[in-house]
Order: sequence, then structure tokens, then C-alpha cells
Amino acid sequence: MSGNSFGKALVLTTFGESHGVAVGGVLDGLPANLEIDLAFIQAELDRRRPGMDFFSSPRIEEDKLQVLSGLFEGKSTGAPIAFIVNNHNQKPSDYDHLADAYRPSHADYSWQQKYGIRDPRGGGRASARETLARVAGGAFAKIFLQTKNIRITAGICQIGEYLIPEPGSQISDPRILAFLEQLKSEGDTTGGVISCTISGVSPGLGEPVFDKLHADLGKAMLSINAVKGFEIGSGFRGASMKGSEHNDLFVNRDGTVKTLTNYSGGIQGGISNGEDICFRVAFKPVSTLMKDQVTINSLGESSVLHGKGRHDVCVVPRALPIVEAMAALVIADHLIRNGERVNR
Amino acid sequence: MSGNSFGKALVLTTFGESHGVAVGGVLDGLPANLEIDLAFIQAELDRRRPGMDFFSSPRIEEDKLQVLSGLFEGKSTGAPIAFIVNNHNQKPSDYDHLADAYRPSHADYSWQQKYGIRDPRGGGRASARETLARVAGGAFAKIFLQTKNIRITAGICQIGEYLIPEPGSQISDPRILAFLEQLKSEGDTTGGVISCTISGVSPGLGEPVFDKLHADLGKAMLSINAVKGFEIGSGFRGASMKGSEHNDLFVNRDGTVKTLTNYSGGIQGGISNGEDICFRVAFKPVSTLMKDQVTINSLGESSVLHGKGRHDVCVVPRALPIVEAMAALVIADHLIRNGERVNR
Amino acid sequence: MSGNSFGKALVLTTFGESHGVAVGGVLDGLPANLEIDLAFIQAELDRRRPGMDFFSSPRIEEDKLQVLSGLFEGKSTGAPIAFIVNNHNQKPSDYDHLADAYRPSHADYSWQQKYGIRDPRGGGRASARETLARVAGGAFAKIFLQTKNIRITAGICQIGEYLIPEPGSQISDPRILAFLEQLKSEGDTTGGVISCTISGVSPGLGEPVFDKLHADLGKAMLSINAVKGFEIGSGFRGASMKGSEHNDLFVNRDGTVKTLTNYSGGIQGGISNGEDICFRVAFKPVSTLMKDQVTINSLGESSVLHGKGRHDVCVVPRALPIVEAMAALVIADHLIRNGERVNR
Amino acid sequence: MSGNSFGKALVLTTFGESHGVAVGGVLDGLPANLEIDLAFIQAELDRRRPGMDFFSSPRIEEDKLQVLSGLFEGKSTGAPIAFIVNNHNQKPSDYDHLADAYRPSHADYSWQQKYGIRDPRGGGRASARETLARVAGGAFAKIFLQTKNIRITAGICQIGEYLIPEPGSQISDPRILAFLEQLKSEGDTTGGVISCTISGVSPGLGEPVFDKLHADLGKAMLSINAVKGFEIGSGFRGASMKGSEHNDLFVNRDGTVKTLTNYSGGIQGGISNGEDICFRVAFKPVSTLMKDQVTINSLGESSVLHGKGRHDVCVVPRALPIVEAMAALVIADHLIRNGERVNR
Repeated sequence: MSGNSFGKALVLTTFGESHGVAVGGVLDGLPANLEIDLAFIQAELDRRRPGMDFFSSPRIEEDKLQVLSGLFEGKSTGAPIAFIVNNHNQKPSDYDHLADAYRPSHADYSWQQKYGIRDPRGGGRASARETLARVAGGAFAKIFLQTKNIRITAGICQIGEYLIPEPGSQISDPRILAFLEQLKSEGDTTGGVISCTISGVSPGLGEPVFDKLHADLGKAMLSINAVKGFEIGSGFRGASMKGSEHNDLFVNRDGTVKTLTNYSGGIQGGISNGEDICFRVAFKPVSTLMKDQVTINSLGESSVLHGKGRHDVCVVPRALPIVEAMAALVIADHLIRNGERVNR
Repeated sequence: MSGNSFGKALVLTTFGESHGVAVGGVLDGLPANLEIDLAFIQAELDRRRPGMDFFSSPRIEEDKLQVLSGLFEGKSTGAPIAFIVNNHNQKPSDYDHLADAYRPSHADYSWQQKYGIRDPRGGGRASARETLARVAGGAFAKIFLQTKNIRITAGICQIGEYLIPEPGSQISDPRILAFLEQLKSEGDTTGGVISCTISGVSPGLGEPVFDKLHADLGKAMLSINAVKGFEIGSGFRGASMKGSEHNDLFVNRDGTVKTLTNYSGGIQGGISNGEDICFRVAFKPVSTLMKDQVTINSLGESSVLHGKGRHDVCVVPRALPIVEAMAALVIADHLIRNGERVNR
Repeated sequence: MSGNSFGKALVLTTFGESHGVAVGGVLDGLPANLEIDLAFIQAELDRRRPGMDFFSSPRIEEDKLQVLSGLFEGKSTGAPIAFIVNNHNQKPSDYDHLADAYRPSHADYSWQQKYGIRDPRGGGRASARETLARVAGGAFAKIFLQTKNIRITAGICQIGEYLIPEPGSQISDPRILAFLEQLKSEGDTTGGVISCTISGVSPGLGEPVFDKLHADLGKAMLSINAVKGFEIGSGFRGASMKGSEHNDLFVNRDGTVKTLTNYSGGIQGGISNGEDICFRVAFKPVSTLMKDQVTINSLGESSVLHGKGRHDVCVVPRALPIVEAMAALVIADHLIRNGERVNR
Repeated sequence: MSGNSFGKALVLTTFGESHGVAVGGVLDGLPANLEIDLAFIQAELDRRRPGMDFFSSPRIEEDKLQVLSGLFEGKSTGAPIAFIVNNHNQKPSDYDHLADAYRPSHADYSWQQKYGIRDPRGGGRASARETLARVAGGAFAKIFLQTKNIRITAGICQIGEYLIPEPGSQISDPRILAFLEQLKSEGDTTGGVISCTISGVSPGLGEPVFDKLHADLGKAMLSINAVKGFEIGSGFRGASMKGSEHNDLFVNRDGTVKTLTNYSGGIQGGISNGEDICFRVAFKPVSTLMKDQVTINSLGESSVLHGKGRHDVCVVPRALPIVEAMAALVIADHLIRNGERVNR
């Protein structure tokens, strides 16, 4: 009901505020007998760390994962896996000036209206720091997917207005780098688009009506901070196509059913058809600016918000592991719903 | 787990195949003491009926709703409301030629792979006829929303490549009508985009993490047959904007907190902020063509699929009430999760 | 939230009021490819029909099941199975005298307090007629269990104060028959106890913490009308035993792990251990009496309730198939949660 | 699906093994703006600590609760409340002799059969140490209930065969003390019964069909380690009563509807009627004995289990706060389902 859990058979519950004691999660339903490489989990966490590239905030965060339960002698036991990452910045002082003013396009106002109370330190529960728990949970799911030869790869396919023809994890186009440099100097930010491909999924994954595989992927992505759009396969472009162009014709390729094109994005009628699952996710520009903004406070009075501290110019590079993690949780959830366990 | 139910506090479960005895649903969680206008429910069903306009299939379906439970003397009682619409076309003969061939971009192949069995008559459970139950369930939800002064309006904003600046329920642009006429004569189809606005939602609706209001709306829309994309507020366009453009600045308008722009689409941090909730949904072209297509059958043999029967050129006009219904279910679900009941 | 659904992987949703159009249910999650013998389902329904023995109400009800969806050519398809039983007695006149008075130990008062409205005809949604849908749903589950060689048998082990050493479905002890005869002549009623044995469950069924197999069985039984108690294995008697008596010692019997005794009732730590699962369910006496009772009405005024119509002296014989059905739903749910499907 | 969560609107998820890093929980759905007295939570934990009386294990455990999230300036914020209690005994040496042998009437064998792996240290996840998280979660729920003037009190009403007419938290009867002394000297154990009363619940709490209030209470109790039976109101005794004795007649007492007797146990048709809610819970004798027992190991070989370490003679005194905690979670869950929040 409160929506801090995700999944039906593999359930990730997250908790924690930006400046509280810790953020963390409980992953319930991971099959037993899975060998867990904790170094891999930590490496996934490190991928989303700020300060990993020039255009992210240079705050030094050492996000060290601690697993509290659910493993025995390096394997999952079927019991829930709880994990935490301690917060290092529990001093609220950096954010005191925000406590009362509603930051534009943040969750301050709507949250206050819903609960009548909020932890204002660093965005509190609404902080993107919550996604740490998603990345950790998703990393456990990825380990399960590896045993099924399923691989998930997200790449940057757009930054601001710049399209990137071959999406990868790095930005190498000098025009884009210059654009980001310029934004940084202006204290401004921009958005972008991430594409993601899931390969190795056998036909038959997903549920046909409300829990269509792409509907669950869509919800997963739209639940990530700053996401404004999701499309599967042909997506919005498909709306302007003809049926005779868009239909993916079936062929028999050496005894395997394949399609000649993949406008369906690997999912038909909500269920995987064995082709690569391809989707795209749109991120809005980061709302925290390093420039002054006029807003109002909780008394309804006009207030000027001064940009200070250090924030990302574009969230997209750091969001890659989050997109992959959420996708991994969805795919693993549906595999387990289908009755799949660890091969013994 | 099987995904035939939608919602957490207000749960719609649907059932039924295209050519079975009936399609229907059970709506559980609708607050008691709500006056139910059954004529309104029926009118909503009539809006999605084929044959209502020139470009839809002229099959005559009389989709007469029968309510089996949950009402007493014209009011909801808090008990589950079950309803059915009988099927008139239970003869499988029209579809026999499809039983074995996998129709391109339909659910035939993936469904068969998942279950090892399927009802092939008219698409069976995968038929869009299932959406009848969504429209009926959503109509009950709309009645609840009316008591909260919440209104949901969907309009057509794109047909094929033609944008419609002022979305409505009718297509009046002669160029679009000619385009559809042309497709019809070719036995071809096209897609489109629907926009939807929800007005009257107070600030504070939605849950902040996984069940963000737009994530639930996104899942709802992506679960509708033929939907390939969803965006909230600025959507994919927001990805190319700067933060200084995109941020919705708060202002005090006669004591009410408003925003100057609404790129957020009425939702911030997953929770409504009191502005109109605006989203868009992309539909692919209808997969059933009135022209020959090459495909394979369940033995892997090549097979030619001949178009016959009567099908829609573009599903978008008929999908308007479905989009509205799913939106109504999401909003009503979150209202009830927030503790809202019928005002007495 | 409203609690009209039961189960997590195999979900039965029931609907319908005693004197509405129909009672029925939707069973979602039954594995595909199960051959369904509808005559068996109907026979199960007939077992709970009133008028089947002398001490039940002689109302003639033909509870004819109609399946609306989910089957194709005699097999389950994986789609939800909806079914209804039409009500024959939709005239409220028999019950008009009850509309306003709160019947003692019925749900009239508490229901009215919860919802502020109720369908008073024949108990409305609170009528035991709702259990028809449980028996039908459970019958589908039983068919699945048969493919796993699991058998569920409930028997009468107590009527009033009379213990029945060898529980069966019939009452043959002349002292008990005389006792029931006497009650009938007095317009009075009595309670009883049902025991149930589930044989053929392999070790490893159930979840270890909150969804212990006996906790789910307990909830299932306690959700049946008139049930006041549940015990597994040694039950309340176990409370007065010593550990050295109560512990079920493990032995190796021809390579199979067995226990010498079965005070655990076939479940240890919430998970089946391969022994018979044995539990007992206590039913209170039927609340509807054929004698006058003093009560109050909704205005708080004193009112005399006159017994009329025809009602059961003891509900226990008719409750046997209900107990079995709910047990079947629990066991099937947990099998599916464990990843079991139809053997192909 | 894995059953480590309890509740629908107020959800407690627990995690942790006896000898892992920590046991803990996440409580999601507690209403915002609740003042949280952490000393009260700790005091509740202390009530279940072993070594608090003569007949419990004298292990010194300092179960110090640490709250990780969900509170701000002493109040709940609506965000999930995560908490942990660190384990002090992470050395597995005390229990090495158990690793391979199946302890009678413990979860060792059934758990091994389910998962193919288990953490054998101190019972692992099956240890009663998991109930720490229930007591902590229940203590938060109790604070919410206090704002509604609801009070929950459990008492010991039976130890072995000794009935205690006025149930309380202490055992003062010298015969019972002597009996326990005797068991202790023999290395044996016994069971008992706890009664629990919930007062102050308004009419209208609970759901009428599957989630009857006593069905949820029953599941809650049966999910506690060592519980073998549950009864509400008249319980098993009610089975032998006549309807004319058992019916609780309604009366108007100064404008309030009351019942003359309370065989219903405060719940009718699954919904509270305003009377005290009364139920009883049977606990089996502790399975760990301080005497030799013959068992088998995982190879099927005969093995003698030697009692060593320190364990409880009777678990009932320590189980009082667990019973209360689970009851508090059920009542709070249903209040929130009914739309109740913190009064402001």
C-alpha cells in the first residue's frame, strides 16, 4: 500500500533517507543455492556513485554494502537478504536553507501535502540515494539471471538534444562534452535518454493481461527518480507506422522461431517471444540548479533559492546501473513466477 | 501472480475469452454507499464498441452489461461488484484458419510458448475484448471520482504521422480521414497517440517510491493491448530540455500553491501537486491486416495468412474510453489507499 | 484490502449475495493443461447442498455451476476461470422481518457498523451461500492435487458433546441422531468439530515465517462462517504435554525419513515433513434458531425475533466439503508457489 | 510469496538468522505524525528476553534496537521504518554438533527438504530469535493503537496441565513452580496456553469474507514458533454448546449496542462488534531438551543428540509480548485498511 516494495515473487523493499543512519533493502524470494559474489554487488553500487565522471557531483561517497542476512557460506539460503549502506553525511547543515522553501520540481511540496511532515535533509526519503538499494537488489537479481544466460545492458542514447547512434556507458562525442561543460559553467542541467537491451530471455516470460512484461518494465522505470517516459520496441515512433511495416514476420531459422524485424521489442501480448527485449527511458533534467530560483516557502511567502553544494549536470550516466537493476528485478521476478529456480 | 488483477485497494480482476461464454470482471474495494448509475456504465461500454465510426470494424456487438453482485437498492454496499457481458459470437468457425498459424505481432506464438495451450478463437484471452471489463470497472471508479470532483478526459492527439493540435474524441481533419480511407482500401492499418488529462486531483495523491502515481498510470496504460509507449508531463521531449527551462516554479495564487508551468505533468516525486495530470500513450498499428502475410505455423512450416473478416484501421478512437478507464482505476485506487471514502 | 480474494499464487476471488443474481468466483493461477472434469466440480457442490440429510434445511436448491471462462476443449488454459451459480430465491419477502432487527450472533450489526449499508436479504454477502464459490474453487484445486497424488479427507469428529472416534462423513451413532432430533423439535441448534487429513504431501511445502503452512490453513478455516477454533497436530492438547512425549523422533524407514509419532501434524517450522497433515476445526452452533429471541433493531429499540423459515440444526455435515475445499486451495497455492505445474 | 512479510496496509517484513549479523525488520505503512517513544519499543523487546525469569535460558542477550530510517525529530514520517538488533553470538561453535543431525520437532529436516541448503547455526532463520523483529514491529503498532485507545493484554492461562484462572504475566502458583522445577531437573519441557484480550476496538473493524478479523488474528498467532492452536471467543468449547446458549443477545445500554454474553469473542461475521476481542493460543512444549534423543542425520544414519547449552523449560512467559505484538499488527493493519490515520 505504501509502495516501498517492488515485485511479486522476488520482492525488493527499500528503506532509508538521504541523511538518516543508512539506506538499504530487503530482497525476499531470491532462490536458494545461488552463489553470491559480493564483489560484483559492490562493483554495481560503485557504478552509480557520484564523482565517477566529470559531470557528476564530486562528493566523495564510499557506499560500502553490508549484508545482514540470507547468505550462508557464500550462497543464498532462500531467506530474505537484508543489506544496508551507511550514510556518511548525517549533518543536516548543508541543507538547512532548504528546509522551508519548496524546491521547484522536487518532491518537497507534494510530499509535505501528503504526509504533513517530511525529513527535509538532503531530500530525505525522496533523495536519489534510495536508488542505492535498487542497484544492490538488482545486482542479486543479475546473478540469478546469469545462471539463465540473460544479460542486461543499458546505454546512453541521448544527452540533451544530442542523439548517440551507438549507445554505450561513456560519452565521447566532443560536442556533447562541450555542451555539458557549458551547462556546468552556467549552473544548469540537462536530461537524456537511456536505451536498454535484455538478451537471452526465452519465449514465454511475462503475464498476458495486467502484468504484461513491458508493463512491469515500464512501471519499474517510471518509478526511478526523474524518469518522464518509457517506450518498448517501436514506442512512440510506432504510432506513425503502418501495420504492414510494423508487423514482425515470423520465420523458421534452423528450427527456431524468429522474427524478421523487432518492432515489438521482444514482447508480444505481454509475453517474451525470444527476441531481444529493447526499451528506452527518458530522464528530465536534474532539478537542482547552481543558480538562483524564485520559489515559495511553506507559509506561501516568496523566497529565493540559491544554488549551492555540488550536484550533477546530467543524471543519465549514473542512472545506467539503476535502469539495469530495475530491469533485472522485473525479469527475475517473472522467471520465479514462471517456476524457475537455481539449476541444481 | 498471473496478473489478471489490477490495483491494491481497489482491485479489478478480469476474465473471459473473445469467443467464450462471457467476458467480465470483479471490482473489489469500491467504497460503500456510492450511488451507481448503471446507464452511465453502459454508456461507457458503448463508447468502445466497434462499428461506432467508419474506420472501426462494423461487427454488430451488443455489449450489454449485467451486474451480478455488490449493489443494493442502487448503491454500492462494499461487497465485490461482479459483472459480465455475454459473448454473441461463440462459433469458432470464423477463425479456424488461424488456429495453427502464428499471426504476426499477435500474442499467438508467445502465449503458446508460455502455456503450451491456448484458446485460438478470436485471440482468446489475448483479444482486445478483454478491455470491455476494464471499461466497466473504470466506469464504477469514475463514479467514485465524480464525488471528489475529479474528471478524466482522453483525446486523440496523433493518427499515423498526423498531429492533432487540439485533441478530442473525433477526427475531423479531412487529410486524416483521407489517409484512413486510403489505408482501408489497402487493407492496411496505422497507429496513433492519445493524450489524457486528469483534473481536480488534490495535492498528496500517490506513493513516493515504487508506486509513484505516474508509474502506476504508466503500468496501467502499457497493459492495454497495442500500447508501446507512455510519457508523463514533458515526457521524451523533457530529455532535451535544460533544468532552468523545465523546472516548474511555485507561485502563491490567492493562497493556493500553483506552478507557472507544468512540465512535471501534475506529479512531483511520484505524488500529485494539484496541477492537471497530463500523460500521453502511443498505440502501434493494428496487427490484423486485410492483406496477405507470410508467417509460419506451429510446426515451423511456412504459411500464408489471408486477411478476412472485419477489423479496425486504427484502434485509437475506440481506445479513448479504455485509457480513461484505466486512469480512473489508478486514481481511485490511490484515493482509497489515502483513506478516502464516500462523503456522507 | 477488502479481503474477497484468497491465496497468493492461486487466487480465488468470490462474489455474490444470498439473494442477488448469482454467487460465483474467479480462480486465477490454476496451471494450464489440467484436464477438468466438470461433473466432479458439480458433485462437490452437491455435497454442501442443504437438504441432503435430515438435519439440514430442506430448501430445494439446484446449485448448478456455470463456467464462464478459462477452459478450452476440457482443459485449463492458464487464463482465469470464472464461474457462477445463479440464485433461485431472489424474492426478499422471506426475510423482510429481519431487515431492521439485528439477529444475535449474526453479522447484521457489525456489518452495518462497518459499511453503513447492507443487503439484508438472507444475510446478503455474509450468507453461508458464499461458500458455494469456495467449494467450486477448491474443486478445481483438488483436480490439480490429484495429479500430485495428494488427497484431502474431512470427517465429523464431534457433534455437540458427542465425540466420534472414527470420523467420517455420516452420523450413524443413534445417541447423536436422537440428540439432533431433540434439538430440531426445540428449534435449537448445536456445533461440532471437523477433523481433516491431507495425505501425499511431499516434504518441503510451506513457507517458514509468516506463511507457515498451518498458519495459512488456519486462516483458511477461520475464514469459514461459524468457525471458532483451529488446531494442528497435537493442538491444544499439546500444551499440556512434555517435550519428551511430544517430540516426533525421526527414523529411517527403508530410505525414507519418517517420524515415529505425528504430534507435529505433518508440519515442522511451517513446512511439511512428509507425514500426514492433520488438523481440526471447531464450529459454533448455528445462530439462526426456530424459537423466539429478544434483540434490538437499528433504532436501538427492543424487538422480538421469531424463528421462521427452515434452517440447519447443525452445520457440520454440510461444512465437510468447505473444509476440504479451503484446504485444497491452500495446498495448491503453496505447490504453485514452490514452482509446481502440471506434469507434461 | 516467500512469506517474510505480514499485513496488507501495515506491512512488517522481517529478516535475519540467529547467528548472522543481525535480525531486524522493515515496517511499512505506519501512519505519519506518530510520536515514537523508543524507550517503549526497547522495553517491549526486553519483555521477551531470555533470562528474565528462572525458567528461561539464562543466556545474556542485550537486544538493543537500532532504528535506521523512517523517523524525523521523534515522529514517524510515513516512510518505512527499518530497525535491527545485532547478534552477539555469531560463533557457530556451540551448535556444530547439530549441523548434520535433524533435531526432533525442529525445522531442520523440512527446511533442508525445501531449500536444499540451510544456515544450521542456532536454528538459523527458523530460530525464535526472529520474533524479536515481530515484537519491535508490534511495539510501533501499539503506539498507533494507543492513539485510538486500544489496549492489548496477554496473560498465561495454562502451563502444562495447570489451568490459571486469572491469567497474568507471572506464575505464582507454587504447584506450577514446582512442576517447572521438576522438568528443569529432568531436562524436559512443557507447553501452555496464552489468552489475549483486545479492548477498545470500535464496531466495524475487519473484512467480511477471507480477511475476517479473527482469521487474520489466527494466522498471526499460528505463524509464531511452537503455536499449535488458536480459538476465538467460545472456541472449541463452543462446538458443544447449543445455539440458544451461545447466541450473544444484543441490548441497548445507555444508547450503546452491547451483548449480554461474549461467546463471539468480540467479532461477528469477521467484523468487530465493539465487545472485547478475546482469543487463546496453544503452545507446544519446547523441542530442545537437555536429555539425549535418538534421531537421524542427513545421510539417514542413526544419531544420538545430546542436550547441551541452555534452553527454556517453557516458552509461554516469553511469548506474551510476541502474542501481543502480532495482535497489535493485525489490529493496526485493519484500522489503516479502514482509512484510519493519526488524529491531527
